[in-house]
Amino acid sequence: MRRIHYLATLATCCALASAAAFANHPPGDAKASVQPASNGIEFPADYRDWRVISVSHRTDHHSMRAILGNDVAIEAARRGETNPWPDGTILGKVVWKEGVEKDWAAAIAPQEFIHAEFMHKDAKRWAATGGWGYARWVGDGLKPYGKDASFAGECVACHTPVKGRDWVYTTPAVMPTNPAH
Amino acid sequence: MRRIHYLATLATCCALASAAAFANHPPGDAKASVQPASNGIEFPADYRDWRVISVSHRTDHHSMRAILGNDVAIEAARRGETNPWPDGTILGKVVWKEGVEKDWAAAIAPQEFIHAEFMHKDAKRWAATGGWGYARWVGDGLKPYGKDASFAGECVACHTPVKGRDWVYTTPAVMPTNPAH
Repeated sequence: MRRIHYLATLATCCALASAAAFANHPPGDAKASVQPASNGIEFPADYRDWRVISVSHRTDHHSMRAILGNDVAIEAARRGETNPWPDGTILGKVVWKEGVEKDWAAAIAPQEFIHAEFMHKDAKRWAATGGWGYARWVGDGLKPYGKDASFAGECVACHTPVKGRDWVYTTPAVMPTNPAH
Repeated sequence: MRRIHYLATLATCCALASAAAFANHPPGDAKASVQPASNGIEFPADYRDWRVISVSHRTDHHSMRAILGNDVAIEAARRGETNPWPDGTILGKVVWKEGVEKDWAAAIAPQEFIHAEFMHKDAKRWAATGGWGYARWVGDGLKPYGKDASFAGECVACHTPVKGRDWVYTTPAVMPTNPAH
């Protein structure tokens, strides 16, 4: 009885914690309306709650990016174990058009959302595309990119220059927390 | 007895959750060695775990930024209630030198860490500086910026053009999670 009571209490605590984490964006709602990519990868409804790995800027088409990681990615980045990234890693890139900050002419800041794209590391499942499964959702409507699963060929082609870095352009940015670190 | 058992179980569960959240960067360690700003603001040891609000780029001195928020800030941003931001908001800006991405010539990415700076909203405590307390820590050694508390005058001067936006340059970037959003 005591054991059952303990488990029931633990379950309640965890349920409350989950409810708090998703209070502003129920994942069920998002899953119901955002279509998966044509290779079966689901849209990660909680990506806004992931932590930042770096930022980048494409000067050729004037877009700005935040690079986020799921928990597996963040832990790997903090351990410096990113070549290869561990299975279970998901890296997300959120891409916006750039625009001049209206009150500071020498600054640029995000304007319209262009797309969010994700790389899922699973060396076996995605062996045909370098160990990574790719997916992208375009525009405010989050429309899956690509007519069929062959779209990943475009991703692999662009990532081939960094094959030696486990196909990933992003180097985790330095974020010190302790001078002794 | 059942009540005591419940509380003990809850405390254990919450302690485990806290331990997991800080496993890679014990806040106690960081607090012990990073000096507070001269106005008394403590270095937020867990800022790497905050969520992203936006990114920006300063073309005048070639630096790139991630703008992060504590939980109060993120909730306010998602509700669209940022003028004014609520008391308890902390906005963090992590600033790096820019450099060309070695495998993609038309991209720039963070290089050396320059500084991390924070704005704490408390309309009463920081009434003399527009309701915000400012703090900055410089370089990998996280040295507090400014010889004394008067450094905040520099912050206020630069932020005066956005007084009408509650002294904040950053507009939360669009991060859709649901087409119906």
